[in-house]
Amino acid sequence: MNYKMTGKFISQIITIEALFMLPPLLISAFCRETGAMLGFLYTIGITLALAGILFLLCRKAGRLFSARDGLICVGLGWIALSLLGCLPFVFSREIPRFIDAFFETVSGFTTTGASVVADIESMSKGLVYWRSFSHWLGGMGVLVFLLAVAPSEGGEKGFTLHLMRAESPGPDVGKLVPKMRQTATILYLIYIVLTVLNVVFLLMGGMGFFEALCTAFGTAGTGGFGIRNDSLASYSPYIQNVTTVFMLLFGINFSCFYLLLLGKIKNIFRDEELRLYLGLFIGCSVAIAANIFTQMRQIYPTAGEALRHAAFQVSSIMTTTGFATTDFDLWPGISKALLLLLMVIGACAGSTGGGIKCARVLLLFKSLRRNTRQLLDPRKVQVIRSGGKTVDERVVSNTNAYLAAYVIIVILSFLLVSLDRFSLETNLSAVLACFNNIGPGLASVGPACNYSGYSDFSKLILSIDMLSGRLEIFPILVLLSRNSWRKR
Amino acid sequence: MNYKMTGKFISQIITIEALFMLPPLLISAFCRETGAMLGFLYTIGITLALAGILFLLCRKAGRLFSARDGLICVGLGWIALSLLGCLPFVFSREIPRFIDAFFETVSGFTTTGASVVADIESMSKGLVYWRSFSHWLGGMGVLVFLLAVAPSEGGEKGFTLHLMRAESPGPDVGKLVPKMRQTATILYLIYIVLTVLNVVFLLMGGMGFFEALCTAFGTAGTGGFGIRNDSLASYSPYIQNVTTVFMLLFGINFSCFYLLLLGKIKNIFRDEELRLYLGLFIGCSVAIAANIFTQMRQIYPTAGEALRHAAFQVSSIMTTTGFATTDFDLWPGISKALLLLLMVIGACAGSTGGGIKCARVLLLFKSLRRNTRQLLDPRKVQVIRSGGKTVDERVVSNTNAYLAAYVIIVILSFLLVSLDRFSLETNLSAVLACFNNIGPGLASVGPACNYSGYSDFSKLILSIDMLSGRLEIFPILVLLSRNSWRKR
Repeated sequence: MNYKMTGKFISQIITIEALFMLPPLLISAFCRETGAMLGFLYTIGITLALAGILFLLCRKAGRLFSARDGLICVGLGWIALSLLGCLPFVFSREIPRFIDAFFETVSGFTTTGASVVADIESMSKGLVYWRSFSHWLGGMGVLVFLLAVAPSEGGEKGFTLHLMRAESPGPDVGKLVPKMRQTATILYLIYIVLTVLNVVFLLMGGMGFFEALCTAFGTAGTGGFGIRNDSLASYSPYIQNVTTVFMLLFGINFSCFYLLLLGKIKNIFRDEELRLYLGLFIGCSVAIAANIFTQMRQIYPTAGEALRHAAFQVSSIMTTTGFATTDFDLWPGISKALLLLLMVIGACAGSTGGGIKCARVLLLFKSLRRNTRQLLDPRKVQVIRSGGKTVDERVVSNTNAYLAAYVIIVILSFLLVSLDRFSLETNLSAVLACFNNIGPGLASVGPACNYSGYSDFSKLILSIDMLSGRLEIFPILVLLSRNSWRKR
Repeated sequence: MNYKMTGKFISQIITIEALFMLPPLLISAFCRETGAMLGFLYTIGITLALAGILFLLCRKAGRLFSARDGLICVGLGWIALSLLGCLPFVFSREIPRFIDAFFETVSGFTTTGASVVADIESMSKGLVYWRSFSHWLGGMGVLVFLLAVAPSEGGEKGFTLHLMRAESPGPDVGKLVPKMRQTATILYLIYIVLTVLNVVFLLMGGMGFFEALCTAFGTAGTGGFGIRNDSLASYSPYIQNVTTVFMLLFGINFSCFYLLLLGKIKNIFRDEELRLYLGLFIGCSVAIAANIFTQMRQIYPTAGEALRHAAFQVSSIMTTTGFATTDFDLWPGISKALLLLLMVIGACAGSTGGGIKCARVLLLFKSLRRNTRQLLDPRKVQVIRSGGKTVDERVVSNTNAYLAAYVIIVILSFLLVSLDRFSLETNLSAVLACFNNIGPGLASVGPACNYSGYSDFSKLILSIDMLSGRLEIFPILVLLSRNSWRKR
């Protein structure tokens, strides 16, 4: 590790975090929430002091450009953000225990939405804003934001590519334009415009501005922290349907929106991943609607109502948002099994959603077909194609390694979390819901419950799962390697 | 597909099956079980008639040697064996419904041991023998047996290798000696000697000969069909410990025994897979023993007793046998989670056990480490080593494809089986227990229950899972490809 450069980088990252704590500080001051206000003040002070010390110590840093440096910066950066970001909750005593606040903050930044708070409606406005805003910031990536606004000297060309690769979801980062900084700016502009649109549509449904803003943050980041104890169940069908559509939009690869801006609409629908994503959404919504309509007529009396709840939940789970309009833990087994499947598949690469990603699932199927063919005809060299182009073997190999790492982490976490006395269904769905950055699981961590019953150890494991899931495993894996901590 | 040659091949296979039905026919005759006797007589008649017709139709068959032909023969061969092998149960009306009998027989041949029979003690001796013997035959492989005894003209050199590859478990078939036929013979000789030893040790514990024989069949094939309703719970600790040891032995790669015969003992313990296998056995046994001893003192009053049950269950699950001495469904969550993990890992390659296999797990970890390194230093070519030798990239790629296929099949089966109204725990453990050829799962398919509650459709899906698991997926996958059914 290049300690000096990493230190300088982290000092930049946490300075940005301190700046983003100003709006919730103002909200708290405006609402006369003394505890929360002081919490933000202390935290901003500590953060800026720390950033200053780090900057002074690491002023004369060299340049970073190796892939390892990129991964390490991303991993440590996110951990630093979470450690500092949870302090307002602790100082204000609204989440008094550090591990709970850390879990909640990691859940926010990683856009998971798993909560340990039972009564969110009694939380102060400033903290509710910060909690929801962490989704928005984590959704597109804090470091992508840094790239978009930082002075260019901070970003060596190769390094910024590695950074972006490490933080952005999906098997391969599609560069929209040759310059990384421009790409980052375009991504954030699309992100902001879509968020504003979402707020406007929610306001049109009669929602208050503060609620609309927080809900849009949770939707845009595909996070899932709600502002009411029943998530979105008590809102009007219009609000629920708007959210269904926007969750779905934020789960689409952002390069599709860029193509839309350029008017290349044909190219968008040629995208195999998008077709799989939309196909899964429609297919699963209809299947679940039929299932709950026929088997739970007393709760969903009309087909329309069944379809609304089914489409909302499918959109919420497959984009890994985690909002709920109904307690899907009560649904029949096959519907719950479909939701578990969607949890694992996740959204599109290059979106704010989590999971394995549709693009990777496509690649896994293709590589399986290729290997079966190769088994049958060992002399012929078989390649994998996507969108008419040959896929680089390294991408295929990395996708397979990703699946292996995914399975290993899920199994190990499941084992460790099983030390607590919850059911297998609770433990497995908790690990999947955290690792895929969804939020609510099934049974004791279902949409009507929360994660506060888990032991501190399990909360730590689940926090690591959330970070691994959001950063796509490798930045966290690299931090665990001894080599990474050697001075260079 | 080369229809003629496949037909000829299947006619050979089912002739062997008919011959193996003679001992249970004699047992039934000896015990005056008219129903079972007639059942075997009818089945033998039908099988031989079918074999004769196939042979006449396909006499002038060409030669087979492509990998695809090998896979197709193995897949169809096993299906034919199961379809005919279940007839005695149906004709004797002891398992009157065809789908139940088919499930039971597939479970036998694939050495799964999942049963739909609630009261095995009331079944006739001949059928109990046939049920247990199917484990023994399926354990080492019916086609390996054919290779060992068939006239050499039937076996083109390349073809026999493909056959053996398709039927034998593990990422790569280690040829013991250059000639395949000799390898097959050596394997079966080791298998027979070990089985005889097992019978002798059981007899020394005071077991009756018939019971000892059937138990040894179930142990040798790592199958798990018991002959008492409580599996091995009511036997003496000596019998249970003998079975623990023999299950463990049959889960070891048979080439280790061959090395032992040659006196190369050092080489055996240099084997990474064996060390992982034994390490997992010891580690998990101790962990589970400590867990159940501390938390279930009323059932396991002494540490020795806890260790005996823990070691037995670990050995039974990780070798994918499925015998039980206690209802492990009642164990604490962490112990059950460990058992689920062992279910997935399975035994060693080249043994009679199922699961992903320790060798593949090692390869997956190594390929993950390699890919992480490659991500950090993209310019350097990284290879994977095992036992000092570089592993062929094709084996690595196939292992990754195997994991992908494994995950996809587990998820799809879980979805389909979820159509029945069982709990998630039941469904998931049922799919894992069938696909990994273990037998008992958890909850409603736990060791104290059976599979009779599932619908016919689910029984069919679970049967396909058992076959896919035993034949390591690809022979069944090839049967699903349209190309395979084209005439050549």
